[in-house]
Amino acid sequence: MDASGLVDLKIVNGTVLTMAPGAEILDKGTVTVHQGVIRDVTSRAEDLPARKVIDAQGNLVMPGLINTHTHVPMSCFRGLSDDLPLMDWLEKHIFPAESLFVNADLAYWGSMLSCLEMMLSGTTTFADGYFFEEQVAKAVLDSGLRAVVCQGVIDFPAPGVPDPTENVHRAAQLMREWGTRDPRLRCGVFAHSTYTCSPETLRRAKAEADEFDSLLFIHLSETRDETKQIEERFGCTPVRHLEKLGIMDRRTVGVHCVWLTDQDMDLIARNEMGVSYTPESEMKLASGVAPIPELIRRGVAVSLGTDGPASNNDLDLFSEMDVSAKLQKVHNLDPTCASARETVRMATLDGARVLGMEDEVGSLEPGKRADLIIVDLDKPHLTPIYDYYSHLVYAVKGSDVDTVIVDGKILVEDRRVLALDCAEIMDHVRRIGDRIRRHRHV
Amino acid sequence: MDASGLVDLKIVNGTVLTMAPGAEILDKGTVTVHQGVIRDVTSRAEDLPARKVIDAQGNLVMPGLINTHTHVPMSCFRGLSDDLPLMDWLEKHIFPAESLFVNADLAYWGSMLSCLEMMLSGTTTFADGYFFEEQVAKAVLDSGLRAVVCQGVIDFPAPGVPDPTENVHRAAQLMREWGTRDPRLRCGVFAHSTYTCSPETLRRAKAEADEFDSLLFIHLSETRDETKQIEERFGCTPVRHLEKLGIMDRRTVGVHCVWLTDQDMDLIARNEMGVSYTPESEMKLASGVAPIPELIRRGVAVSLGTDGPASNNDLDLFSEMDVSAKLQKVHNLDPTCASARETVRMATLDGARVLGMEDEVGSLEPGKRADLIIVDLDKPHLTPIYDYYSHLVYAVKGSDVDTVIVDGKILVEDRRVLALDCAEIMDHVRRIGDRIRRHRHV
Repeated sequence: MDASGLVDLKIVNGTVLTMAPGAEILDKGTVTVHQGVIRDVTSRAEDLPARKVIDAQGNLVMPGLINTHTHVPMSCFRGLSDDLPLMDWLEKHIFPAESLFVNADLAYWGSMLSCLEMMLSGTTTFADGYFFEEQVAKAVLDSGLRAVVCQGVIDFPAPGVPDPTENVHRAAQLMREWGTRDPRLRCGVFAHSTYTCSPETLRRAKAEADEFDSLLFIHLSETRDETKQIEERFGCTPVRHLEKLGIMDRRTVGVHCVWLTDQDMDLIARNEMGVSYTPESEMKLASGVAPIPELIRRGVAVSLGTDGPASNNDLDLFSEMDVSAKLQKVHNLDPTCASARETVRMATLDGARVLGMEDEVGSLEPGKRADLIIVDLDKPHLTPIYDYYSHLVYAVKGSDVDTVIVDGKILVEDRRVLALDCAEIMDHVRRIGDRIRRHRHV
Repeated sequence: MDASGLVDLKIVNGTVLTMAPGAEILDKGTVTVHQGVIRDVTSRAEDLPARKVIDAQGNLVMPGLINTHTHVPMSCFRGLSDDLPLMDWLEKHIFPAESLFVNADLAYWGSMLSCLEMMLSGTTTFADGYFFEEQVAKAVLDSGLRAVVCQGVIDFPAPGVPDPTENVHRAAQLMREWGTRDPRLRCGVFAHSTYTCSPETLRRAKAEADEFDSLLFIHLSETRDETKQIEERFGCTPVRHLEKLGIMDRRTVGVHCVWLTDQDMDLIARNEMGVSYTPESEMKLASGVAPIPELIRRGVAVSLGTDGPASNNDLDLFSEMDVSAKLQKVHNLDPTCASARETVRMATLDGARVLGMEDEVGSLEPGKRADLIIVDLDKPHLTPIYDYYSHLVYAVKGSDVDTVIVDGKILVEDRRVLALDCAEIMDHVRRIGDRIRRHRHV
């Protein structure tokens, strides 16, 4: 507290789901926040006077959700083309649209729009990989969310990187220029995949990420075609390929990880590589079903991502939790796998673990940054309540999130976005959409 | 129009997705409603004066969604137990809870709560199967929704039917007493399954349904265990068993239909039996994935259901559409199957077809009953728009439904439920939930 004896914020009377080891659910709990940090989480009433008090009576207070893989500027392409095979979708629709339309303006406004969507559905931290990532970084600072933004690296001309020999250099530039501007923002490298990046590119990308003590993300073993292609070119699986290149460790995040052999899973576990599981995208693009229970059994940190809004088509981690648990059950013909509680952990604490932020966010514990959301439980579809974890996965919708706080700052209250002009952001993206639509119809 | 020259309602300026064959999407369309009936759907501005005008500028006007399988009183058990195998879930949790707690009061208030949830997520017609269905019928009349309510028939003591020899009689009684009370309400029979109803029970249930020109619903080939059991007892698949009993026709609806042989699918097609596909429940209970594309290829009418709120755990057909399309794609490893457009048709026109109501609801066409919803598209997660079908399946949420009209009557406007006391309904169900919770913790 400050000289006046006041703490910044007190959230009282709510049910507090801490996700901390041990006492995970507090009835009528109090969360105290000061200078962006959680000061206390207690089931006692807390007498400390506060500048602002939120009465969460009948609501659920929990850590903000963590989306470990997306491409936020792509909200501008949401629904542009669907129901197509991955390679057709990428090569005939997405890559051409990107080469024509992606610029700094699209990247910024698309990211702002995605930030709105994420905060309105309870996400407080996300990890992004795309081009013009300095624009994504700008949107992170402007929106108030927390993020790891990663400049895309790919061995062909890409938006903003016409000369592919510059790709790793551009990623390093982002980390250098933006990496230390704000505690809410971290930078990293997004190497697109083993089939679009040469071994040399991957090695250099990892070296730069290490240089800045940053994460490297990579699409990994997403489709059967990819694993065949890598097998033909390098005589091994994509995972083994990464290992041979020496770039698998706890600061590398494998995204998708659908087509894994037992050896692949052992390698991921042994090297402590984090995994981002994006079930809705893998379903929509018919990539396959990742062996999540087997990874978790091996102790791998598995988190949840939405993937980009053009392949999902939303950024809603509540629906991702629901689908994640259900898909694993039906795929394994085992209703006991992927429990509700494990699934909530994937979207909170394990997300933080994968991003190397477990000391900072992912649970409500004293000393962690104050990233939290309040879910309004006073709804027909959330009545009655027997089990909070079950509700969070199988019944709560993103639109039930009432209040969103990041770094102690209230971004959304009573579903109103406080500091951003939603209409202006939507208008900008609509104009971008109009240009894209006109071009398609020529 | 009446003597005053006024029509009851005009919805103007919206994008109208009619689901009618031919001109399915009208830009700046006008829908005119009089005496509960759609009078006109046109892209012209309509000069006719109206008692009430809704400006749907920037919104989407479409047919209300049709949920062809649920058990609405079970909202009282939502989240009571999850992540369990079907038989454990049924026999150790749901059946005991039902025998202790299901009574007329629970059935009525649970149904009212479910009606609230359904209208707030865009469903205007549902088909229900449970016990105390006269209470469900009452809730349908009180809520303003349209429904087919079916009394459950099962060969052991059930809530409200302690003597199983009375089961078919009770179903007939419902049809007799409630079947002609209101055009919004139809009654039918819900024979639980081939493993819980004897051949004689099934024959009698079908005979009564026929007597009242009503539908018979049955859980069919839901799990592998079920098909094994029927194979052992009757030497054939559950579908073939129904056919041998002579109770497969276009007034029988098979629910689930997961474990089908090619012969089963041919039988369903040849006998024109309708199918209710409930993917979220089948995923959550790990039952399996129904061969929907193969059924549709054979011309079978396939509709969507949520199943009961204890096995889903919601009644939201928007999420069901999303999951339905995605699950079929990943299961068949074919992203082109289960297109967005086909999926919207399953939740509207094909739902009407399965319920034998295709002349009445399911599309916006002159002469049909005025059951329609307005979706608010002015949201970050729905910006920009390239394709309405894609948005409806992959991006729109139930909470984006702004206005709901059934039989020409506005039930929900600007997301406010007009004629019902939501707090009172939730309070009743909370009290029921408290009783159930106390009993569990004894």
